[in-house]
Amino acid sequence: MKHNFGAGPCILPAKVLDQAADAVRNFNGLGLSILEISHRTPEFEAVMKETQDLVRELLRVPEGYSILFLQGGASTQFSMLAMNFLHQEKKAAYLDCGYFSQKAIKEALLFGQVNIVASSKDKGYNYIPLGYEIPEDSAYFHYTSNNTIEGTEMFSFPPTTVPVICDMSSDIFSRMVNVADFDLIYAGAQKNMGPAGMTLVVVKDTLLEHIQRQVPSMSDYRIYRDNGSLFNTPPVFSIYVAMLNLRWLKEKGGVKTIETENIAKAALLYEEIDRNPLFYGLADPDHRSRMNVTFKMYEPAMEQEFLDFASTRGIVGVKGYRSVGGFRASLYNALPISSVEILVSCMSDFEKEKLNKEVELAQNESL
Amino acid sequence: MKHNFGAGPCILPAKVLDQAADAVRNFNGLGLSILEISHRTPEFEAVMKETQDLVRELLRVPEGYSILFLQGGASTQFSMLAMNFLHQEKKAAYLDCGYFSQKAIKEALLFGQVNIVASSKDKGYNYIPLGYEIPEDSAYFHYTSNNTIEGTEMFSFPPTTVPVICDMSSDIFSRMVNVADFDLIYAGAQKNMGPAGMTLVVVKDTLLEHIQRQVPSMSDYRIYRDNGSLFNTPPVFSIYVAMLNLRWLKEKGGVKTIETENIAKAALLYEEIDRNPLFYGLADPDHRSRMNVTFKMYEPAMEQEFLDFASTRGIVGVKGYRSVGGFRASLYNALPISSVEILVSCMSDFEKEKLNKEVELAQNESL
Repeated sequence: MKHNFGAGPCILPAKVLDQAADAVRNFNGLGLSILEISHRTPEFEAVMKETQDLVRELLRVPEGYSILFLQGGASTQFSMLAMNFLHQEKKAAYLDCGYFSQKAIKEALLFGQVNIVASSKDKGYNYIPLGYEIPEDSAYFHYTSNNTIEGTEMFSFPPTTVPVICDMSSDIFSRMVNVADFDLIYAGAQKNMGPAGMTLVVVKDTLLEHIQRQVPSMSDYRIYRDNGSLFNTPPVFSIYVAMLNLRWLKEKGGVKTIETENIAKAALLYEEIDRNPLFYGLADPDHRSRMNVTFKMYEPAMEQEFLDFASTRGIVGVKGYRSVGGFRASLYNALPISSVEILVSCMSDFEKEKLNKEVELAQNESL
Repeated sequence: MKHNFGAGPCILPAKVLDQAADAVRNFNGLGLSILEISHRTPEFEAVMKETQDLVRELLRVPEGYSILFLQGGASTQFSMLAMNFLHQEKKAAYLDCGYFSQKAIKEALLFGQVNIVASSKDKGYNYIPLGYEIPEDSAYFHYTSNNTIEGTEMFSFPPTTVPVICDMSSDIFSRMVNVADFDLIYAGAQKNMGPAGMTLVVVKDTLLEHIQRQVPSMSDYRIYRDNGSLFNTPPVFSIYVAMLNLRWLKEKGGVKTIETENIAKAALLYEEIDRNPLFYGLADPDHRSRMNVTFKMYEPAMEQEFLDFASTRGIVGVKGYRSVGGFRASLYNALPISSVEILVSCMSDFEKEKLNKEVELAQNESL
């Protein structure tokens, strides 16, 4: 039994994996694999429709928004959104709150001017900036709601009159948000939605009236909307597994229910990090992510030993991102609280082992 | 038992589907699904390497070429290649030989000037133009080696000194080509390579020195080359299944062996189309595709009846593309010759039934 704390591609519910495996052999009893059916069949059109409907229902998407499925990941959106919405006469406002914000800014600069309204770079992005102003003449305001690498998350969103574009790759479907506060939400699928290979876009139709630049068809949000994300061959399997996963979420009670679980899971782990004298958390306590918990050991030399100790208990994917180091435990929707309990016991048992060793050493020395 | 003649996403070998289903449950005995492992694990890095090596070996890719895996399909390449290689001071030469050539031309026009060196539009793209000239100062020459919708295929390639860019989406791995004749080959995976959600690019490294425009990271071929297609999260599952499928092709004897089978399969079906008085082929006999066989009935009213008749024998995916009508039987690598034999018997049995009915009618009338 593995406890998969990977940051993405990441854990999916066992039931979803079983259903996906079955469909790879025989989809819907058709005698064909989900991998070998045309995207123009009524069977796949039904999959597309159900996936869109589930997104709409689970996120409570209001009227006037379109649900799109694109290929590529959030990195493709970094340039695509700027290509569509950043024009010469206006600046785009960006919140610089982490590694992926930076990447988004870099790509936007190819298409126009960027105004960084606030940054937490000064402290290695360990907090979310507050108290900044968004100029009212901005083309749009862009931010990342959860910073997968640094382990910070935004729990309040600044009010603004300009269009709001948000990268929700790593916390979408993990908590309730008011979609009406956003003009475009995008999210790479490989966290709480499904396997890598697809990006969800929820976009306000009125935003699409502001595209002035001529953009390639595959970079034009309107093409996806007008063709029901079937302008060309979509990532059939990724969409199908996302549908299974969203069905699972709905059966569990939806986003509100999973949010309660996610709060409990994160609280349990942060409590142990704060209690255990060997570990410390990296993010400012007010901005600690519920999805990606980053922490280190006071003795860096001990970290590999802890990783080895944890792996004997089936814990995988807790090594921190290369630029940050330490540990990162991702607590996505599909991770059960029992896995968090095992990680917490593992940390406390490791502490006991270390303390016992110290006592032994002290005793040996005093002999 | 189904006989899947779908044009893409299309049939994959049963063995590959079994292995893929197993890996969705438990990949490499890790206790994790292929859908939930990180693309940064040594296990997935091994998948990437093996897939690249198999492409290199099966296509006999010479030194000086890179093998890249991108998200999106060939449609994304239509604009991406022009963004990278079409500059203001030069024109790009395009062969207009079908629906997808047209789409490629449309996207290229966003980035510069296009010179259509020849077109077969006059006859509904039922042949491949011959005997045209490619100006030596062209930025590149672009063509589609197999026209999936119209059912034509290029069997000789015009000699030229300008960089050659070829969309091989629907005939890659189906026949031997001399990769050294090309500067960039691209192919959406969902025909002879694997499931939808990935595009293969084989590019000559020297071509990448000619990129003058500043392009977004995710549209820059150099980013994929320099990061081993791991700049961001790749379509993990699509790449994994492509690896399984290329292993299968290698075990079968490679491209030369499958080419012989593909020639036999196509010959069998075209023979029946030419023999059977109810049917006729759409493509010029000299340019008939071995991958996508397009044909119609002399009595269009009879076509639905034939489709129903064929479906009782497990034949699926033979309905023609909406703009062409009639039938299209795709004979991709994974389709066994026994499936073609069943389609051929089906056509000949249908003919007999119709003839018998005519005889009956004639007899009834004469009574």
